[in-house]
Amino acid sequence: MVQSINPRTGAAFGPNFEDTSISEVDSIIKKSRNAFEGWSSISHSKRAEILELVADGIDSNATALVEVADLETGLGLARLTGEVARTTFQIREFAKAVRAGKFVTPEVDLFVVGAPPVGHPGFIRSLQPLGAVVVFGANNFPFAFSVLGGDTASALAAGCTVIAKAHPSHPQTSVAVFDIAAEVFTAQGFADVLTLIHGVQAGAHALKSDSISAGAFTGSLKGGRALFDIASKREVPIPFYGELGSVNPVIVLEGGAADPKALAASYLDSLLLGNGQFCTNPSLLFVLTGSPVKEEIAAQILERKPTPFLSPATKSLHDSRREELSGILESQPVSGVEITDGGIYSTPAVIFTELEVIATHPEALSIECFGPTGLVISYSGVDSLLAQIASLEGALTASIFANEGDERAIEVVKALAKKVGRVSWNSWPTGVAVSIGQQHGGPYPASTSPLHTSVGLHAISRFLRPVSYQNFPEQIAAQLSHN
Amino acid sequence: MVQSINPRTGAAFGPNFEDTSISEVDSIIKKSRNAFEGWSSISHSKRAEILELVADGIDSNATALVEVADLETGLGLARLTGEVARTTFQIREFAKAVRAGKFVTPEVDLFVVGAPPVGHPGFIRSLQPLGAVVVFGANNFPFAFSVLGGDTASALAAGCTVIAKAHPSHPQTSVAVFDIAAEVFTAQGFADVLTLIHGVQAGAHALKSDSISAGAFTGSLKGGRALFDIASKREVPIPFYGELGSVNPVIVLEGGAADPKALAASYLDSLLLGNGQFCTNPSLLFVLTGSPVKEEIAAQILERKPTPFLSPATKSLHDSRREELSGILESQPVSGVEITDGGIYSTPAVIFTELEVIATHPEALSIECFGPTGLVISYSGVDSLLAQIASLEGALTASIFANEGDERAIEVVKALAKKVGRVSWNSWPTGVAVSIGQQHGGPYPASTSPLHTSVGLHAISRFLRPVSYQNFPEQIAAQLSHN
Repeated sequence: MVQSINPRTGAAFGPNFEDTSISEVDSIIKKSRNAFEGWSSISHSKRAEILELVADGIDSNATALVEVADLETGLGLARLTGEVARTTFQIREFAKAVRAGKFVTPEVDLFVVGAPPVGHPGFIRSLQPLGAVVVFGANNFPFAFSVLGGDTASALAAGCTVIAKAHPSHPQTSVAVFDIAAEVFTAQGFADVLTLIHGVQAGAHALKSDSISAGAFTGSLKGGRALFDIASKREVPIPFYGELGSVNPVIVLEGGAADPKALAASYLDSLLLGNGQFCTNPSLLFVLTGSPVKEEIAAQILERKPTPFLSPATKSLHDSRREELSGILESQPVSGVEITDGGIYSTPAVIFTELEVIATHPEALSIECFGPTGLVISYSGVDSLLAQIASLEGALTASIFANEGDERAIEVVKALAKKVGRVSWNSWPTGVAVSIGQQHGGPYPASTSPLHTSVGLHAISRFLRPVSYQNFPEQIAAQLSHN
Repeated sequence: MVQSINPRTGAAFGPNFEDTSISEVDSIIKKSRNAFEGWSSISHSKRAEILELVADGIDSNATALVEVADLETGLGLARLTGEVARTTFQIREFAKAVRAGKFVTPEVDLFVVGAPPVGHPGFIRSLQPLGAVVVFGANNFPFAFSVLGGDTASALAAGCTVIAKAHPSHPQTSVAVFDIAAEVFTAQGFADVLTLIHGVQAGAHALKSDSISAGAFTGSLKGGRALFDIASKREVPIPFYGELGSVNPVIVLEGGAADPKALAASYLDSLLLGNGQFCTNPSLLFVLTGSPVKEEIAAQILERKPTPFLSPATKSLHDSRREELSGILESQPVSGVEITDGGIYSTPAVIFTELEVIATHPEALSIECFGPTGLVISYSGVDSLLAQIASLEGALTASIFANEGDERAIEVVKALAKKVGRVSWNSWPTGVAVSIGQQHGGPYPASTSPLHTSVGLHAISRFLRPVSYQNFPEQIAAQLSHN
């Protein structure tokens, strides 16, 4: 059972949400699987049209949705309004993509006369939706990575049905979004294309079901790994797209620090955006020893004010990690403004250290402080920096600040590219564009499936499986495809 | 330690091959990982050129290679000569694909002006090789699915380095192929791009290494699942592309049986090709109750002669499975000609049963008799057939024999497509073309990763990971790509 908590006051409010019982989950799985037959069979254009109606439904209820989400998450009206726009944009982009045949158009490989290996029958390589899938929403994006977020939208666009597991830190928002979408699907004759469940046990049970074909997850390393293990240990293992923890490195080369004051300010803006509760948070910053950027950060952090955590659990985990990191590195955090008004806050802080210290405490770089804590590491030269990058674990994203003439910049970029799914030039990692070129996924522990992305149009591919039709006469083949 | 066995006589011959020791495996992994730095960085055209030189090397030694492979596998000179041609064709096709930029060309997503979500930075979405990978060869294709088979060729084309684990049923062929390839790589300045290990423990140890980025396997369900579990349980899980067991259904509708005699003959040809030791073997044949096809098969099987098994272990597993299947279904196999000349043979056989019997013994359909055994199931109508198809487990491929006017054919094809990676129309499943439209992979247990194929050009994609470059100036981006 769960109840909403207002992060600005710590007070519980609103109805209690019961965990979905195991028998209810079984019944929902059955409904989802039945709904798959219809949803996977309609034309791409019809599927796109219905998804667009869902997006319209969300948009026309945006004000009410943002209000409830703000009460549950404390993320603020401006950010949440933007997030709703992003969420419906995302749904419409996926809809547009499948309508245009992107990712779903069969590849035609014509008959070649002659003996093998050169000669071969004709093939039509189609892409077919996997089935009913379970999506585990994240706490930090109550719209864009939640019930109707990118995982759900891309799976629906592919033709899968989705069982969404609501995140306990925003149950009211989850139900409100679900109700709007479910009404549209039902009105269009596709009830149960999207279903909703509550509770950790309910989610795990669904992932184990023979009738479930894939899972998608955004959240912590611990939770994500547990679910990945469930998916992998099944008698019939299924794809599991987990986007887990990530400690994202940002490198400042000498030429990238021309304006130390502005760089420090933009660093703190990115670090503290949404109270630092982003999977793309720039939590590791590497600056040259003696760089004035360090002094600027140390000065500017003093003025930074806290914003609320998403939940008491998030704060408590963050605080213990910050303490652990500070202890390992024997370096006291330099902290910002403290506020004690009953809200779920921690003072923003930066911990400073040197590459030589990290060398004896490499475990420090795996500690993800999900919240308003940065680690600034001074390095004495590019060679030692490159060695350090080579031993980083996988991450979602990395940034480099350099000028175009910086002769070592290419080397650093290539080293970063081996560790992450996205490298940004002179720009911060937060703010993940929904676009065809996006890659939001990296080597483990950033993702359990680094060949795929959870943001951007390629996300659809995670839910499609190739089926080749060999030697089919044209008129039969024509009856198999629909677009 | 392993020694070759001549399947035609059962006699051991040639040198003993020691298992690679754990310390040697570690040293080979290190070399492979070091070689990756160079191999992954050269231009696509240079990589293609070297792969073509490897193919040339194999072709010019084809006669000697086929001779040794024939002694070790008993597959016959004609089949093995064709397989060498297929293997080098495959290497050249992968080389041609990367030279043309297929699968490896970055996707350019231009900067869009405006506020998010519509506006976004520019992206260059590149595809980068995963690293050093381990390839476990199969016993049934000593060239095309072995040391330099499709998994190795596609991984090398992607820019990965490969540690090939030799199959113990053809160690001399494995070493001979490896020596030719290794000489070319070394002469071209890329020593250790391909390395070779022997032994089950050596292979498992390599798959566990932190320095290994993926695994690929063709073989049994038991062996493949054990390796999949190793790959999934690692602290850092890695992609594992296993092509495991498959019981491939073939459906004959009324209209597909116009010439029962010819159909029965072509069925037995496909079933007994290579002694039935194919992952695409049509081991389940569904015919209409009372169809003369059944009588034809029962008559024609009597004349069929055995050909050798690949190894005593393969024969022994096959024989016990055939006995198990026959026992469960309470149906004696109808057998062909028996030969007792000391070779590793089993008499070809077909077991006949009915759908009603299967209904009470569904486990029978999961028993893969890897060898010369077919199961022919009579069905009384298309509705009961469709229900049976819906409960089949995943398979690599399925076939349907029907005429174009058959009104239920489309329904059957759609039902089959949910279970397999390839559906063939009026043609047998054996003979897997190396082509862009091929899909050789299906729902588990056919594959551990049904989104991918192990045959055909798309196989390259298994070894590439997207990395997006965000907001990069053109002149820097130009230095990152090479083709």
